[in-house]
Amino acid sequence: MTAAALLPHHDGSPLHVSTAAPKLGEEVRVRLRVPHAWGEVASVRTRSNPDREPRYTEARIVGAGDGHDWWEAPVLVENPEHGYRFLINRADGRAVWVNATGVHELETLDSEDFLLVTHPAPPERLASTVLYQVFPDRFARSSRADSRPLPGWAIPADWSDPVDLLQPGRSQQLYGGDLDGIVERLDHIEQLGATTIYLTPFFPGRSNHRYDASSFGSVDPLLGGDDALIRLVEAAHERGLTVIGDLTANHCGIGHEWFQSAYGDPRAPESDFFYWLNDEHTEYVSWLGVPSLPKFNWNSAELRRRFIEGPDSVVGRWLQPPYSLDGWRIDVANMTGRYRNDDLNAEVRQAIRRTMIEINPDTILLAESTNDATGDFRGDAWHGAMTYANFTRPVWSWLSERGEAVNFFGLPVAGIPQHGGREVLAAHTRFTAGFPWRTRVGMMNALDTHDTPRFATSARPGAVPVALGLSATLPGIPTVFAGDEFGLTGVDGEASRTPLPWGDPAAEGAMTLYRDMLRLRRDHPALNGGGMRWLHADEDVLVFVRESREQSVLVLAAREPVTVTLPQHAVAGAQSARLLSGQGSLAVTDAGELELAVEGPAFVAWELPAPSVPTA
Amino acid sequence: MTAAALLPHHDGSPLHVSTAAPKLGEEVRVRLRVPHAWGEVASVRTRSNPDREPRYTEARIVGAGDGHDWWEAPVLVENPEHGYRFLINRADGRAVWVNATGVHELETLDSEDFLLVTHPAPPERLASTVLYQVFPDRFARSSRADSRPLPGWAIPADWSDPVDLLQPGRSQQLYGGDLDGIVERLDHIEQLGATTIYLTPFFPGRSNHRYDASSFGSVDPLLGGDDALIRLVEAAHERGLTVIGDLTANHCGIGHEWFQSAYGDPRAPESDFFYWLNDEHTEYVSWLGVPSLPKFNWNSAELRRRFIEGPDSVVGRWLQPPYSLDGWRIDVANMTGRYRNDDLNAEVRQAIRRTMIEINPDTILLAESTNDATGDFRGDAWHGAMTYANFTRPVWSWLSERGEAVNFFGLPVAGIPQHGGREVLAAHTRFTAGFPWRTRVGMMNALDTHDTPRFATSARPGAVPVALGLSATLPGIPTVFAGDEFGLTGVDGEASRTPLPWGDPAAEGAMTLYRDMLRLRRDHPALNGGGMRWLHADEDVLVFVRESREQSVLVLAAREPVTVTLPQHAVAGAQSARLLSGQGSLAVTDAGELELAVEGPAFVAWELPAPSVPTA
Repeated sequence: MTAAALLPHHDGSPLHVSTAAPKLGEEVRVRLRVPHAWGEVASVRTRSNPDREPRYTEARIVGAGDGHDWWEAPVLVENPEHGYRFLINRADGRAVWVNATGVHELETLDSEDFLLVTHPAPPERLASTVLYQVFPDRFARSSRADSRPLPGWAIPADWSDPVDLLQPGRSQQLYGGDLDGIVERLDHIEQLGATTIYLTPFFPGRSNHRYDASSFGSVDPLLGGDDALIRLVEAAHERGLTVIGDLTANHCGIGHEWFQSAYGDPRAPESDFFYWLNDEHTEYVSWLGVPSLPKFNWNSAELRRRFIEGPDSVVGRWLQPPYSLDGWRIDVANMTGRYRNDDLNAEVRQAIRRTMIEINPDTILLAESTNDATGDFRGDAWHGAMTYANFTRPVWSWLSERGEAVNFFGLPVAGIPQHGGREVLAAHTRFTAGFPWRTRVGMMNALDTHDTPRFATSARPGAVPVALGLSATLPGIPTVFAGDEFGLTGVDGEASRTPLPWGDPAAEGAMTLYRDMLRLRRDHPALNGGGMRWLHADEDVLVFVRESREQSVLVLAAREPVTVTLPQHAVAGAQSARLLSGQGSLAVTDAGELELAVEGPAFVAWELPAPSVPTA
Repeated sequence: MTAAALLPHHDGSPLHVSTAAPKLGEEVRVRLRVPHAWGEVASVRTRSNPDREPRYTEARIVGAGDGHDWWEAPVLVENPEHGYRFLINRADGRAVWVNATGVHELETLDSEDFLLVTHPAPPERLASTVLYQVFPDRFARSSRADSRPLPGWAIPADWSDPVDLLQPGRSQQLYGGDLDGIVERLDHIEQLGATTIYLTPFFPGRSNHRYDASSFGSVDPLLGGDDALIRLVEAAHERGLTVIGDLTANHCGIGHEWFQSAYGDPRAPESDFFYWLNDEHTEYVSWLGVPSLPKFNWNSAELRRRFIEGPDSVVGRWLQPPYSLDGWRIDVANMTGRYRNDDLNAEVRQAIRRTMIEINPDTILLAESTNDATGDFRGDAWHGAMTYANFTRPVWSWLSERGEAVNFFGLPVAGIPQHGGREVLAAHTRFTAGFPWRTRVGMMNALDTHDTPRFATSARPGAVPVALGLSATLPGIPTVFAGDEFGLTGVDGEASRTPLPWGDPAAEGAMTLYRDMLRLRRDHPALNGGGMRWLHADEDVLVFVRESREQSVLVLAAREPVTVTLPQHAVAGAQSARLLSGQGSLAVTDAGELELAVEGPAFVAWELPAPSVPTA
């Protein structure tokens, strides 16, 4: 996608699509905005691809405003995932296609079509979710924690001890954070501006990260047990916060009750829950060959019943009282149900979502898929991805120093790749074009997580606000890994699991930044599901506008001092712009052009009037 | 993909991949060629994506030659469709990816990975197939045809009558070509250089095109009946030619015995073969809403048994004696099995291929999918596509005049889009990158078909040899629609179904061109499955080299006079080049550069030595 202010534009937001939750057989109206300055247009059509055969509908002009014509056409939704693009015949005879990657003279791939999907829609609140990720062992320790006996595997650590990067400490060093510790810090989370706490696993395991569950039936006593979870969710709900848990659908721990029953006993009821490599059922497939994490075999009907199907399953049970979780994040979602000839991923994810909807359709379902996630995130189950390909790595590559010591998301490369703003736009576009709009809105825009270095570790001077601003304003869910707001650093996923330095006065600057940025996000409807239009991308600067029926928010992110000139009609109503965040200047020239300027690395947002949208 | 002579290169051909037919769990060796002139390399790795999780293997240099290093790495094939790409860490610290679309600094999509597939491989002869498409009613009329009574729907035409473009003549005008007419013209087909006759449908219908079969059980008596097909296949086989038929798997004709039985009778055994829209079974789903073509419902187990499963099915029966067809082309393959919520396409195509393999694994299976075919052509069933997106339309857009009168493949655009050579390369790359190599080898490179205008109609002066040369030398199957070799024209799919002008002396020029070009293709192993390396693309010229262990064939295609200079080591052994086809000059400068020049629109091919390939 090239960012040019005066190109035809469409996205899946309400300004351009009459419904984001169509039914099969429903006629949806879609709109394309064409700038007058782009040139004369002879006709506009939609090109759908029902049953993989092209079908065209004619668009007509339904209104004009801000130097644009609005073309509208009906699209009959004929398949559960219905792709469409636009075909413009220009007055000079040239034909142009508009799809989710931009404007093209060449024919385009189906995989880059805009998408309408008839699967059950995510809850409306997804678009205004702000996620705060808590790794319980390192977040906060309540007074209750002191009295708990430690299991044999645990290596106790004091809160101020450094994180041990080497095994066995890496997995077994236990700081003793617990769920009541979170309850005691809800003020912090609420004031920060989060809407939703995402807890990494709370099931018992044999490690500090608990991704090796020994049961899905109870909360780890080290965290305070089931009652602590109930206390946490209740206390959160009282403040209007929601809480989601973390499930390993790909594997469990070697200590899991199901695996213990099945191991060495081919007649065990859980025998077919796993992939066995010998007849004695003592050798088995595990996650990336790590023996402590046996992989689930989703061919098993009994596994599906116990784990994901219906209210009594693991997935269902924790969403109901007395626990009342508000959703799940699924670990290793990309590998789940996949092994050799098996690919049960779609079945498993859809079953998980069916169960959740049965209990509470207002729950949310996020999933880990840290690379190209476009194949699995089709709007049929996962609401959004913890993926690093479309946001995290592009932002790092633009706003980080080379940082040879940093583990760049496990890629075998030398330090952090160094890219310009155009490449950020290209990578972001490449790895989001395959998602339906409503899935883009659910993407987890994390600068870092418990599995990665902390962004601040290698950030260019002044870059943290720029990166955080992008997290808060690009389509998707701003996702803060607890500790970022204290300015923590860490060169890899282990090092970044530092116990939170509560009361550290040095953290105030970062804290204020996080509060302001998340507040910006929450206060502005255009940022919570509004349209997304790129206006400019250059080596050192990105400019885009988010648009809703209520307002527009113009965003400039720069890593160096820059001045950007946008043509007249790039946005509407610039003369009445109001600065929302950051330091920058905005001026309208006599020619009607828009001049934006910043004097250093900066994130700046302005509020503008909503675009003039013809009524339906 | 940018065409630059000195970039790292990999493709799926035998020079670079140790086997094109790996088993699940097999270790395959893959090779990347890196030109010394490209710069110093610190490391090369493969990046696979088993179960959608990245895995890397280290490559090592196994040899050098012609200014290149050959890096080799093992790839363990862990899924039936196993994607991989290369990651190069350059000595300057930059990381670069190599995938099926080229060389990239940004991370790439899974859908553009190279692919190893463990599904049954196509027959080896696929790579050296040259297809000759015969539309039986218009090809040739034997003396036997005179005595046949015409059915009521037929509007008889004399061989010299013009084609009627309007209904009812469009579908019902019958010239009376028959299968014995083809037998009598086998000399022509053989001398032209085809290896395989592709017959459009020979089943009885109510139209001249017979895509509305009234039975799959017998050959249309108007064509001579079953015995005529037996005579044709036997006569073809005697000459070493093979014959494939054409099946409509998406629909049949309203007169089909199955439909006649099911229509209005919900208790009929064929009742569930179709999609009914009312309880009385008198309204039904049809192909694009055309009532004469009811659409099959592949949920029906009985339909599968009768049509595609096992030796007694339609698919199986005609491949066996006494008919002994050598394969099928499947009509409307893209829509087959797809309707609303249903997507049974993969099941149906895989069942078709299973049946064919059971009878004769040496059969070939081609399928119509005229747009983006990358989703369905995964090496699991269809060997190649009749698709226009990756070859036909790009070549037209480069080598045609605007031709306002021409129907450009049904796209609602004004005339034929006008593109340069770089766009040809971009479109070709875009629409082939998703195919496994062995599927690329099976792509039908047709300049036109019975469904399109004839290429010659709007060709730029001198462009027919250029286009035909590309058809004969790009990866894929050269596919000639009978009549092209007579220089026929036609502005749309109907007009192009002209009865063949046998004995027309004006056709000699075109005939010689076709013979020479298909001979070029057949005589050179590098063109029959050899590697494909783009060397140069510019507005008016394309240059590439096909490479095998035996030889290289250097190809230049130009639409204007051009001179192209390629750097030293772009190809090996240029000083011993031998002109194979066309008129052009090739010179090696003192600096070792290669200068190619033509004086007008031209297709030129030279034979060069094989590249220096390290032994395994």
